[in-house]
Amino acid sequence: MDNVVTRRSMLAGAAAGLAAPVVVTAAAPTAASTATTTGATRKITMYAEALPGNLIGYGLAPGQATVPGPILEIWEGDTLEIDLVNTTTQRLSIHPHGVDYSVDSDGSPLNASFNNPGETRKYIWRTRESTPALGRKFMPGSAGYWHYHDHALGTDHGTGGVARGLYGALIVRRRGDILPDKQFTVVFNDMMINNKLAPDTPMFEANLGERVEWIAIGHGATFHTFHLHAHRWADNRTGMLEGPNDPSLVIDNKDLNPGSSFGFQVLAGDGVGPGVWMYHCHVQFHADGGMVGLFLVRNADGSMPPGAQEAIDRFHNHQHSHD
Amino acid sequence: MDNVVTRRSMLAGAAAGLAAPVVVTAAAPTAASTATTTGATRKITMYAEALPGNLIGYGLAPGQATVPGPILEIWEGDTLEIDLVNTTTQRLSIHPHGVDYSVDSDGSPLNASFNNPGETRKYIWRTRESTPALGRKFMPGSAGYWHYHDHALGTDHGTGGVARGLYGALIVRRRGDILPDKQFTVVFNDMMINNKLAPDTPMFEANLGERVEWIAIGHGATFHTFHLHAHRWADNRTGMLEGPNDPSLVIDNKDLNPGSSFGFQVLAGDGVGPGVWMYHCHVQFHADGGMVGLFLVRNADGSMPPGAQEAIDRFHNHQHSHD
Amino acid sequence: MDNVVTRRSMLAGAAAGLAAPVVVTAAAPTAASTATTTGATRKITMYAEALPGNLIGYGLAPGQATVPGPILEIWEGDTLEIDLVNTTTQRLSIHPHGVDYSVDSDGSPLNASFNNPGETRKYIWRTRESTPALGRKFMPGSAGYWHYHDHALGTDHGTGGVARGLYGALIVRRRGDILPDKQFTVVFNDMMINNKLAPDTPMFEANLGERVEWIAIGHGATFHTFHLHAHRWADNRTGMLEGPNDPSLVIDNKDLNPGSSFGFQVLAGDGVGPGVWMYHCHVQFHADGGMVGLFLVRNADGSMPPGAQEAIDRFHNHQHSHD
Repeated sequence: MDNVVTRRSMLAGAAAGLAAPVVVTAAAPTAASTATTTGATRKITMYAEALPGNLIGYGLAPGQATVPGPILEIWEGDTLEIDLVNTTTQRLSIHPHGVDYSVDSDGSPLNASFNNPGETRKYIWRTRESTPALGRKFMPGSAGYWHYHDHALGTDHGTGGVARGLYGALIVRRRGDILPDKQFTVVFNDMMINNKLAPDTPMFEANLGERVEWIAIGHGATFHTFHLHAHRWADNRTGMLEGPNDPSLVIDNKDLNPGSSFGFQVLAGDGVGPGVWMYHCHVQFHADGGMVGLFLVRNADGSMPPGAQEAIDRFHNHQHSHD
Repeated sequence: MDNVVTRRSMLAGAAAGLAAPVVVTAAAPTAASTATTTGATRKITMYAEALPGNLIGYGLAPGQATVPGPILEIWEGDTLEIDLVNTTTQRLSIHPHGVDYSVDSDGSPLNASFNNPGETRKYIWRTRESTPALGRKFMPGSAGYWHYHDHALGTDHGTGGVARGLYGALIVRRRGDILPDKQFTVVFNDMMINNKLAPDTPMFEANLGERVEWIAIGHGATFHTFHLHAHRWADNRTGMLEGPNDPSLVIDNKDLNPGSSFGFQVLAGDGVGPGVWMYHCHVQFHADGGMVGLFLVRNADGSMPPGAQEAIDRFHNHQHSHD
Repeated sequence: MDNVVTRRSMLAGAAAGLAAPVVVTAAAPTAASTATTTGATRKITMYAEALPGNLIGYGLAPGQATVPGPILEIWEGDTLEIDLVNTTTQRLSIHPHGVDYSVDSDGSPLNASFNNPGETRKYIWRTRESTPALGRKFMPGSAGYWHYHDHALGTDHGTGGVARGLYGALIVRRRGDILPDKQFTVVFNDMMINNKLAPDTPMFEANLGERVEWIAIGHGATFHTFHLHAHRWADNRTGMLEGPNDPSLVIDNKDLNPGSSFGFQVLAGDGVGPGVWMYHCHVQFHADGGMVGLFLVRNADGSMPPGAQEAIDRFHNHQHSHD
């Protein structure tokens, strides 16, 4: 149940949809937050820590590193200041996608932007709304389903750090965006999901009708396609349509390749009912090799639907081809 | 001329654009249909059958299985009930993309949803229009260029069934969508097109100006890019633009990877004239290896344009690198 | 500084945004042009020439061939007539994406459309605006970030010509499109960028705030993802948004695979400041192997920002894994 965050608490203290995104963690969801104005600066400390199994993870407190790291989430217009503590014995960094940063927050050895072993270094990520371009178009704002990752461990591109787990989701929300009840991070990293293979891949859970947000990220050096059974989304910024004339493709399968990310929201089991649904890489040999996990949609009251436990047992007892 | 369907007959009995999509087959186009209301339930029987060359196909009647299977087509809002007859000696199923189904129609061994050898099993696919999401966005409807495939033969992901030909196109139309004159299904399955290599790949035919619909599907474990000469389309739901401000990319080359599908309509030879046009994978070694086919655009009266037969002969006489 | 074109001169003689795109070259930007009406026919001569290092390039005058070839640019509605001179000893051609051409301008051996050694042959590319489709949609126009390449050298798909450098960018502008100050062509061709590896890959340069247009093209037989540090764009036709409700994905990383192309404009260093920014393939081993280049954003007055020279030196002194 890695990287599952309950958002109900966050929403409790504010009007739905106006609650301020805050930095959330996999292990310990933050308490209810209050609404903020655009332009706030949020300060956090992150820790890069060695984990069992030769992994390295990011965490928001000592001893809490996970793979993937915590979901970082801010409003478009806000700034995030990160004091990254490198508790490992190797050079590493944190490099974001989608947001604004100057060369000293690039996270790359090219710009001498990294943490030596034991070092703490500040990285500043800024965001902004879209701006007019000569009155005819708009330069895009920062809102999106992004991600962050190491760019310095092992090679100048962080190949070693990414391989060992130094990655996570970064969400920049636009005012008015609909906030989810739960969030799942799925990282296709080489031939694994969140550095695990079935049946050890995450089983994500939600109750029927809950608004679930998926953030999918690609890493490593292999190519994949992400497929979710019985749910679909629009291939645009929010995964939803702006209206009846929104021409966006609607999909349930999408390329998920190194450095790319996307996100979408679904209503768990909507129109299809509760049950155990697969998410997997649709490349046949990758799925057969263990790039598959479960999305358990419980009944609306949280109870198990008929057949669900049997499916879970089947999944765990199955001999995957990598065994 | 596999999977070429003439739609003129379908349109004859109803106002253009309001004719009801119906289940159509590769081998035997259905007769003219009458308009239906949203919410209809259509019932068909499909047969999974062994074919020469170690292939297995889906068909709409005994002895009529093809690779790809028939194009299945319904209106958004309709339900499709499929009685699948497994005439083979192996476990298999049918799994759809894009539509709604409960766990017992999942087509996956995970949910014990498959046909044993000789068994007949019902699969129910439902569709629906988009729905408002908190007044600010819309959850996507079912309309799209989707596909169906086996999810049980050989492995729990149907790797054996897909490799041998158990796949086909599934179209869910929205009210007002423009219906085509002809339809072509192109499946990039590992290193083949519709499980064939040039010069045995399909030669699709149309007369100048006919509205031709292409449905492209990716399968297997290799990555490809689909390219069509002298025609282009918008990279959105219909392949056409909503109006002058529709920002969609216009393309003539698109990633076509396992589990993904897209569709578009072109006017055959519009602005470029009749002739023999290639469609092919744009990965150089894949094209050289035989992932290429022909799109013959005849004159408006159906006669052959100058040079066309010579090009076809050239294609058939050429020694492809896989020979 | 390959393929960098200064557009200021072009804009000088016409109202911004209404200046006529003209054929521009990498080596010798054309002088200021005057506005033209839609429907103009532009005639150019191109030369395919052998270059050192077993390369072959296209150029707009004898002895001026480059890899990539010159950026060809016209207004939607215009026609481009190319007299291609083959100065090499091998069969070759020029095949465009996105535009209209009849079979004799296809550039393919299938249609006997190529230049024998020493031969000059005319290729005609036409373009057009979008057109209504039964009053409900629009068939896409020609505007887009396209490309051209050989389709005849080595194999019937030009595998040899493409491998050796016979490719370039083709832009079709729509009336009202915003013209850039500078243009960069980036071609991921197998495991190289513009047929080079770091540190010999292009270093593109701009001053802070200049409007820079990137045209990215994929070729060969390998798959890649293009990433640009500290800048982002919309994944649509222009890379900009139509307005606040444009649902387009905003990205900074995109699949760049054989036969595909895309383009976008950024304001150099906008919101992030001057400095040396990487562009690279995000596939880890590809980046480590040398698929990386530099985007030098100077101060607004053209002077070097602090740390920039050190970063450039670091890049040149670094031992890339392919050395």
